[in-house]
Amino acid sequence: MQIIDGKTVSEQLKAQFKQKIDLITKTGRAPGLAVIIVGEDAASKVYVANKIKDCEQIGMKSVHCRLKEDTTKEELIEAINCFNADPTIDGLIVQLPLPKHLDENEILSHIDVHKDVDGLSAYQTGRLALGIPELKPCTPSGVMELLKAYGISVAGKNAVIIGRSNIVGKPMAFMLLKDNATVTVCHSRTVNLTEITKAADILVVAIGRARFVTADMVKPGAVVIDVGMNRAEGKLCGDVDFEAVKEKVAYITPVPGGVGLMTRTMLMANTIKAYELYGK
Amino acid sequence: MQIIDGKTVSEQLKAQFKQKIDLITKTGRAPGLAVIIVGEDAASKVYVANKIKDCEQIGMKSVHCRLKEDTTKEELIEAINCFNADPTIDGLIVQLPLPKHLDENEILSHIDVHKDVDGLSAYQTGRLALGIPELKPCTPSGVMELLKAYGISVAGKNAVIIGRSNIVGKPMAFMLLKDNATVTVCHSRTVNLTEITKAADILVVAIGRARFVTADMVKPGAVVIDVGMNRAEGKLCGDVDFEAVKEKVAYITPVPGGVGLMTRTMLMANTIKAYELYGK
Repeated sequence: MQIIDGKTVSEQLKAQFKQKIDLITKTGRAPGLAVIIVGEDAASKVYVANKIKDCEQIGMKSVHCRLKEDTTKEELIEAINCFNADPTIDGLIVQLPLPKHLDENEILSHIDVHKDVDGLSAYQTGRLALGIPELKPCTPSGVMELLKAYGISVAGKNAVIIGRSNIVGKPMAFMLLKDNATVTVCHSRTVNLTEITKAADILVVAIGRARFVTADMVKPGAVVIDVGMNRAEGKLCGDVDFEAVKEKVAYITPVPGGVGLMTRTMLMANTIKAYELYGK
Repeated sequence: MQIIDGKTVSEQLKAQFKQKIDLITKTGRAPGLAVIIVGEDAASKVYVANKIKDCEQIGMKSVHCRLKEDTTKEELIEAINCFNADPTIDGLIVQLPLPKHLDENEILSHIDVHKDVDGLSAYQTGRLALGIPELKPCTPSGVMELLKAYGISVAGKNAVIIGRSNIVGKPMAFMLLKDNATVTVCHSRTVNLTEITKAADILVVAIGRARFVTADMVKPGAVVIDVGMNRAEGKLCGDVDFEAVKEKVAYITPVPGGVGLMTRTMLMANTIKAYELYGK
C-alpha cells in the first residue's frame, strides 16, 4: 500500500509554477489573482490567507479585497466588474459562503468567464463537459494531478465516484471519462452502493460524511481518493475510514495531507493558465 | 414487454405545442426557428425539410436559409449574426455536417447561446451539467420525455449509457443523474461491458453500431432505449438487436419509430422554451 502524498506533489507543482513565473516576469508582468471576501466568516479568512500565501510563494501577484458584511449586491457586482476590467488580474474568485442576503449563483455569474479560475461557471463547466476544457474546477483537477504523479493510469478502469456535486463529483466524472475510464456516479439515492463500490478500480469519495467508506466497501488493490474534510471527535478526517481501508488498497490519499492541498495548488495553475490563454 | 412508441408521444407533444402557439399568437408573434444549411448534402436537405414541416404543423414561424457550398467563414458568420439580431427568431441551428473548409466548432460558437436550440454550446451544456438547464440537447431530452410518457421512474435505478458523445451520451448522463439515477457511462475503452450492461435497469445505447447490443447483454425486465440509426442489409436498424432483446425486457424503443422522432419534436420544444425565456 502506498500513501498518496499531496504535500509533496503540490510542492513540486508550485516549484514548477515559480520557475514559470520567474521566466515570465523577466520580460513582462506576473499573473495576478484577485480574491474578494465579504463579511467576517472565520474559516473563509483562513482560506483566503492561504491563497494569498500560495501566490507569494510562487511570485504571483495577489489582490485581496475585503468588503463589509452588509455589502449590497450592486456594490459587490461593481467590485467584480472592476477586477473583470483590470488587465493585471487574470483570475478572480469570490470566497464562499456569502452573507445570506446575497444570491451566490447570481453573484458568481458576473465573473468574466475568462477569469473564472474556480472553473465553476456554466461556460467553463460546459467546456469541460464537451471535452475542450480551459479552466477546470480545482479539486478534481488536483485529483487528476495526484494520479498522474503516481503513474496511475485510468484508461479502461472502473472508476466510481460517490457524490455528485458541481464542484467535485460531476467535473471529476468528466475528467475521468475524458481519460477513458468507465465512470459510475453514485449518490444519496443509490440503492446498491456497496455492490458498486466493490467493483471500483478507482474510488473517489466526496460526500462530506466522516469515515463513511468502510473496508468492506472497497475492492482489494483499489485506488482510493478521499476528498472529504470532516471533523470527528475533535480531529480532521476524511470520508474514508483510513486506518481500516489502507490495509486493503494499493493507493490511498490521507486527510489531511492528500487532496486538500492540491485544491489550493490548482487555483494557482488555473491563474497561470488564464494568463496564458487570455492575458494581455 | 411494451414497445415505447415515439410516434404517438411526439404527436401528443406536438399537439400540445400547437395549442400553446395558438394561444400565444392570439396576442403576439409566433416563436420562430431559423435553419441555415450550407451546400448540397442530400441527407441534410431531408432533415431540414422535416424540421420546416414540424414548424408548419404546430404554427411556428420558420426561416430556411440556404447558402452555397463555397460560402466563406465570414459570410456564414454574417448570416448567423443576422439571425442572432433578429427579434422574430428564437432558435437558430446550423445544419451539420458543414463543408470541410468550415470549422464546425468555431462556426457554432457564433450562435447566440440564448438561441442555441440544439443545446450544444458550452454555455447550455454547462447549465445542464450544473443542474440548472435551459435549452437541453434534443435527443437525450426526447428520451426523458419517452420515459415520462410511459411512467418509467429512474430514481434509484442503475442507468447505463453506452456511448459518451457530446450530443447524446454525456447530456443523457446529466439528465438521468439529475433525476436521481445511479449513472454509468461506458464506451469503446470499457473492459467489462457485458458485466456492466447486465446490471442495468435502464440501458441507453448510442454508439452507431448496428445491432451491437445482444440479448445476453441485457438484464431481464430492463428498459432499453436505442438511440442508434444504422443501415444494415438495406434496412434501417438501431444499435440493439431488437428482435432478440425485446423478448427479455419490460420496455424497448424500436428503430425507426422510437427516439428519432423525439429529437425533431424536442427541437420544437426548445424553440418555444427560448421564446418563453428570452423572446421579446
